[in-house]
Amino acid sequence: MPTILGPNQYGKAENRVVKITRDGATHHIKDLNVSVALSGDMAEVHYSGSNANVLPTDTTKNTVYAFAKEYGIDSAEQFGIHLARHFVTSQEPIHRARVRIEEYAWERIETSDADSRFVGADEAKHSFVRTGRETRLTQITYDGERWEVVSGLKDLAVMNSTDSEFWGYAKDGYTTLQEAYDRILATQVSGRWRFNWTDDEQRTPDWETSYEQTRKHMLQAFAETYSLSLQQTLYQMGARIIDHRSEIDEVRFSLPNKHHFLVDLEPFGLRNDNEVYLAADRPYGLIEATVLRDGCEARIPVDLTNL
Amino acid sequence: MPTILGPNQYGKAENRVVKITRDGATHHIKDLNVSVALSGDMAEVHYSGSNANVLPTDTTKNTVYAFAKEYGIDSAEQFGIHLARHFVTSQEPIHRARVRIEEYAWERIETSDADSRFVGADEAKHSFVRTGRETRLTQITYDGERWEVVSGLKDLAVMNSTDSEFWGYAKDGYTTLQEAYDRILATQVSGRWRFNWTDDEQRTPDWETSYEQTRKHMLQAFAETYSLSLQQTLYQMGARIIDHRSEIDEVRFSLPNKHHFLVDLEPFGLRNDNEVYLAADRPYGLIEATVLRDGCEARIPVDLTNL
Amino acid sequence: MPTILGPNQYGKAENRVVKITRDGATHHIKDLNVSVALSGDMAEVHYSGSNANVLPTDTTKNTVYAFAKEYGIDSAEQFGIHLARHFVTSQEPIHRARVRIEEYAWERIETSDADSRFVGADEAKHSFVRTGRETRLTQITYDGERWEVVSGLKDLAVMNSTDSEFWGYAKDGYTTLQEAYDRILATQVSGRWRFNWTDDEQRTPDWETSYEQTRKHMLQAFAETYSLSLQQTLYQMGARIIDHRSEIDEVRFSLPNKHHFLVDLEPFGLRNDNEVYLAADRPYGLIEATVLRDGCEARIPVDLTNL
Amino acid sequence: MPTILGPNQYGKAENRVVKITRDGATHHIKDLNVSVALSGDMAEVHYSGSNANVLPTDTTKNTVYAFAKEYGIDSAEQFGIHLARHFVTSQEPIHRARVRIEEYAWERIETSDADSRFVGADEAKHSFVRTGRETRLTQITYDGERWEVVSGLKDLAVMNSTDSEFWGYAKDGYTTLQEAYDRILATQVSGRWRFNWTDDEQRTPDWETSYEQTRKHMLQAFAETYSLSLQQTLYQMGARIIDHRSEIDEVRFSLPNKHHFLVDLEPFGLRNDNEVYLAADRPYGLIEATVLRDGCEARIPVDLTNL
Repeated sequence: MPTILGPNQYGKAENRVVKITRDGATHHIKDLNVSVALSGDMAEVHYSGSNANVLPTDTTKNTVYAFAKEYGIDSAEQFGIHLARHFVTSQEPIHRARVRIEEYAWERIETSDADSRFVGADEAKHSFVRTGRETRLTQITYDGERWEVVSGLKDLAVMNSTDSEFWGYAKDGYTTLQEAYDRILATQVSGRWRFNWTDDEQRTPDWETSYEQTRKHMLQAFAETYSLSLQQTLYQMGARIIDHRSEIDEVRFSLPNKHHFLVDLEPFGLRNDNEVYLAADRPYGLIEATVLRDGCEARIPVDLTNL
Repeated sequence: MPTILGPNQYGKAENRVVKITRDGATHHIKDLNVSVALSGDMAEVHYSGSNANVLPTDTTKNTVYAFAKEYGIDSAEQFGIHLARHFVTSQEPIHRARVRIEEYAWERIETSDADSRFVGADEAKHSFVRTGRETRLTQITYDGERWEVVSGLKDLAVMNSTDSEFWGYAKDGYTTLQEAYDRILATQVSGRWRFNWTDDEQRTPDWETSYEQTRKHMLQAFAETYSLSLQQTLYQMGARIIDHRSEIDEVRFSLPNKHHFLVDLEPFGLRNDNEVYLAADRPYGLIEATVLRDGCEARIPVDLTNL
Repeated sequence: MPTILGPNQYGKAENRVVKITRDGATHHIKDLNVSVALSGDMAEVHYSGSNANVLPTDTTKNTVYAFAKEYGIDSAEQFGIHLARHFVTSQEPIHRARVRIEEYAWERIETSDADSRFVGADEAKHSFVRTGRETRLTQITYDGERWEVVSGLKDLAVMNSTDSEFWGYAKDGYTTLQEAYDRILATQVSGRWRFNWTDDEQRTPDWETSYEQTRKHMLQAFAETYSLSLQQTLYQMGARIIDHRSEIDEVRFSLPNKHHFLVDLEPFGLRNDNEVYLAADRPYGLIEATVLRDGCEARIPVDLTNL
Repeated sequence: MPTILGPNQYGKAENRVVKITRDGATHHIKDLNVSVALSGDMAEVHYSGSNANVLPTDTTKNTVYAFAKEYGIDSAEQFGIHLARHFVTSQEPIHRARVRIEEYAWERIETSDADSRFVGADEAKHSFVRTGRETRLTQITYDGERWEVVSGLKDLAVMNSTDSEFWGYAKDGYTTLQEAYDRILATQVSGRWRFNWTDDEQRTPDWETSYEQTRKHMLQAFAETYSLSLQQTLYQMGARIIDHRSEIDEVRFSLPNKHHFLVDLEPFGLRNDNEVYLAADRPYGLIEATVLRDGCEARIPVDLTNL
């Protein structure tokens, strides 16, 4: 045969599962989008269409919903670990499972009325509003021996309205850009971080605390870095995480430079003293880099994918 | 001529303007998307292509940016009023201006470090993160005499995880739905409310306070209504606003019923006691209605448009 | 009660139905997205939550799928007429039905092999590729007596690479635009046209032929109009339809002016003789107008909605 | 330092360039979205913010537009080769360039009028309509010595309305799926193919012919494969390309299984003989695999990215 099969995987993508946990009248909510990709001894289905080794994607969907009941959802990471372990250990032809999860955050609706239907003086017991700020992500990969957990987020828009410069750059015959000594620095953060937990023998991180702390350090580094380039800011964001979170060895960011152009108001007799900006869509600078704990290896792919 | 011109309007849409206001080292930000539509004595440009009465859309764009400097942006509503008044009063052929504005909310990045670069003990002076929760909207219309201001929001996702039923409905030969006595009620609110301010002689509402209070009452009504139908909840949300906000005479909502289906886990020997739901995309129920102050007239169009 | 109910409607939106019709081994396909909105005697469900008059949206969904079998889908318009008539005539509390349909076009996959599985020498009998060019739309409204049918399309991108000028416009203190004597004219057409068929006694138009011809005349008018303004081109597009299609009395277009800016290449020693353009996203001019058969009334709403 | 820099790249993304070529009154159009990513000796800008080695992303944008004039755009691939070579050979710190291009296809507006403004009897000379069917893609990578060209497409929706089965699959305790002996097979093709052209000494492929032929073979294989699984169809699509196109050594597909569920019409006394389907959104099966010319190595990444 002149052609052969290369790397392949399959599974059910974007299983939208909402889990309600009831603590008396007080409810808790987890809202996930779960995608499963399985690989292993799958040559025959590609070559001949024999499905003998193929657990249907419909079954992977059923498993996601059943496990939400059987194991609950303490965190997206822990839920993904249950799922990945199950597929690899229960189906002989499946040698590797990758589970990707998006998580959407909800918070309780505030109320000022002290009402028995509410948690405290000012929070509803089972009424929620979606926060919308960012989407939390995780990816669990398991091959029967080692785990790889990469978590992260996307669509977190941040802006510094000053303390950003850009000058001293290389110039060639196509360079017309003016140097900037006080500009807006805005981006929409897409970030991924890899945990050094790889083995069932190790203690697992506290996934929820880790996420909150990582997000906090990243935002603070963005806010506190006086920026000479978005690359420098990116590096500081990654280094701050590595410095503070011992469970993380690698961070990768993809940061679009959301250009805010100072509008020329002189034709109208007005002086624009870094006040009025046009927020542009395209094109945008795109800055991508990995920051590593010294001695560790880069494993997060160069291109961050959406899901 | 066998054909004639009907209603028409033109202008520059989606002008993205970011305005930074500096209070010493502390910055404030307004982030708007402004669309202008003008109409008036415009038959000739349609019939013959003569542009003599046409102020270019490029000029409407320039005006948006210039006015951000000249007048500042206290609120989206006030900014739209400045713009609409300008076009109608300065250009003789323009008889009516409609300004639509989307506003994106930002909040300060939190920091625990008491640092001179920060507002308080825990907020950055000029570093922001976009909240993402909903998009605030307003539409200002002016014809040289009367004002119409319709504000609102879109993409606010809310959920009650209990206290919702649906039964006792009409049935015909195509009805298979089972009655529900405890279901999730979830929607993505798109709402518009019309102010009774129409005249320069009246005192203008406090637009910022009005928005915050209207949003609060709407959310509380959603949380506090024990629901027998989404229509009932919708009505309560509108009535609560009318009851509490004397500046508003009309509210219209478009509420998709974001179905959350209880997953059948019995084939796997599991009992799903209102715990595990599949969040569906399409189709969805769509419930739309206007709630009016008694004696007032409905003026918000039946179909809410995006911008 | 200080508040009252205003205009309202409800139903199931975005029912995705695919209908395969088999002519021996040759298959035909219709791919629709159907949204139903019903209104009538619905005050009680809003005021008290009593669903006695409410046919569930789940039933409207079932009806869409059942009617695809019972009546087939000759055209989106005819299918919508069957649905609207059913709801108004079979449910006493329902006084008005509005059915909106999006249609996605598919064409047969071409093949050069004369194979028994294929329609002719070069077309597959039951293999299709989606054309993707535009989305066809229709909206059927029925109140038990009169019909209103408004059809149209969205997302049809067209471009003239010359034969477009823009000059002689009004100027004010915010005008900086240079006059243009040879520019690209590009837009993404959103159009709606209203049929004068309103009564079961009249002969119905041939909906499929009408769509193809209307689209053709519209495109030809766009191509053949030497444009002094997008308003002029819009009017010609509408007038051409009215002139050639006696079944249509009213046309409305919403035409974004998709700006293509001539790039200044002089800093690089190059002359840009209307060759290299930057296609901009936002802002864009937005030109909207109705063209009417003389003596007819404008009924299509000012704002075209997506679905 | 406890942290170090890992893989990184930067550049201007999504430069939207439209190039008009004039052949007398007949115009030709190329419509591209070009993204440039550069890497090399970039540690210092990340560590200290020194931009000495950083050619601004604004310059990469300027270069895209200038090259559209200097070299024209014969094909997306050839245009990307000019750009990648330029950055690597002209800037000492840049060791590697990756250029990604999306191409949008336009066709001439048809007209039946024999008019001097038109190309033939029935095609406009400079009026175009966007075809919309799929987006063509290419990615050019150059390190100063070797080239890698990966082309492809995305968003090509295809459907077989019969000749697809799915049965004989693995079952476990979470399996409820019924076997199918006649189902719709529909997908939205995302495909990438790698050329074996790697060296300036080799003759370059005819990029335009290669794309058209590759697309044709892929569609025919989809249409002509009696499918026992989507994996089998995928493999046939890839193998057909490898078999017919000697310039291509590797093909990777990501194929969502766009489920079309046969609607149960029995409750309404109707028999659904593979006629009426519900087209579902999420979840969907996702089948991904690489097909290789025997003896070649898989280099296309497991996850296909959008741009």
